[in-house]
Amino acid sequence: MASNPVTRQTRSDVPEVVISRLPQYVRILNRLLDDGIQVVSSQQLGEKLQVTPAQIRKDLSYFGRFGKQGRGYIVKDLLERLRQILGINTSWNVAVVGVGRLGRAILSYPGFNPDGFRLVAAFDLNNQVVGEEVGGLSVRSMDELDQIVAKEKISIAIVAVPVEFTQNVVDHLVACGVKAILNYAPIAPQVREGIRIRNIDPVLSLQSMTYYINEE
Amino acid sequence: MASNPVTRQTRSDVPEVVISRLPQYVRILNRLLDDGIQVVSSQQLGEKLQVTPAQIRKDLSYFGRFGKQGRGYIVKDLLERLRQILGINTSWNVAVVGVGRLGRAILSYPGFNPDGFRLVAAFDLNNQVVGEEVGGLSVRSMDELDQIVAKEKISIAIVAVPVEFTQNVVDHLVACGVKAILNYAPIAPQVREGIRIRNIDPVLSLQSMTYYINEE
Repeated sequence: MASNPVTRQTRSDVPEVVISRLPQYVRILNRLLDDGIQVVSSQQLGEKLQVTPAQIRKDLSYFGRFGKQGRGYIVKDLLERLRQILGINTSWNVAVVGVGRLGRAILSYPGFNPDGFRLVAAFDLNNQVVGEEVGGLSVRSMDELDQIVAKEKISIAIVAVPVEFTQNVVDHLVACGVKAILNYAPIAPQVREGIRIRNIDPVLSLQSMTYYINEE
Repeated sequence: MASNPVTRQTRSDVPEVVISRLPQYVRILNRLLDDGIQVVSSQQLGEKLQVTPAQIRKDLSYFGRFGKQGRGYIVKDLLERLRQILGINTSWNVAVVGVGRLGRAILSYPGFNPDGFRLVAAFDLNNQVVGEEVGGLSVRSMDELDQIVAKEKISIAIVAVPVEFTQNVVDHLVACGVKAILNYAPIAPQVREGIRIRNIDPVLSLQSMTYYINEE
């Protein structure tokens, strides 16, 4: 298993939880590179990520052989390989649907561009918002969604509409060819197989902490 | 292991990833209860949560024996027990720090109260915002943090301040006795042992999806 190159495995062989950790590896490696650090051990990576070194070695083993026993990983090479595996060595065009308070914060968030996510279009359900300039984009009507998704080659959307509209908006996006959706509403919309969705949910995050602070 | 009651284990014996799944169980069980469903199998729960039935049985086994072989779980009992384990059978007072666009969206988000998280105070670093009414709260100065955290028995804070202020705000909250922090800035602030922090990060979420939509 440890030496299997990724090409010998299908993508679905890798547990989703492993995939979800790789972006954190990428982030840490980027910081190490910025700090001029060229080699890092699984011990050091583990400390930064709060996981065991064994877990890191196991996670990476899904994608082939990285680093040498006792010598650590070459930061630049590991970073480049992980970016390639994750598909973030290219740039992705992203649409934001919902230009309320949260949508506006998202559109002005500076963290997307450096990581290759280009917010190229904004949409709102409310025609009073359509035409407004937000974050350098002119807000579009949902009637234009199909056409703009195709024209701008948008495969990812961030959805920040009220709960009651979320499933409809998600369905609409999927029908237009969007493949991955980040949803800020506190529900889990249904999508067909092959479509990826992540729900940002502050309550779930809070509930995962009370366990630890309860009965102290 | 499967029949160990939680009292025989220390809280840190349960893997964090298991704890982080329990709130999702609670959410599904709540919905089943709303739909009038009284008994659920691990198979049915697994389908709703996209995990294997075995994973569900294993997760629950950390906390004792639930359900009966072949009979499924009694929804009401399992829900009550999980809420108790997570410490969400009581209500928690929460402060929001940072009343910019995102902070305002958080303060007007209706999802906290039904789940027992009461937003009882809002703070901002900018004195121009202090005194403003947002979401039914009068925005406070950070100078009042210590006093209000004590008075309102606040053990949880949601931080929505710009990246460059986040670590300082987190340090300040911890110094005042806050035990759990949900951070919206795209960095991972450092906290001392015993303090819980979760970082909401749209880029990490996006990067965990591109793997699947790449090379299709």
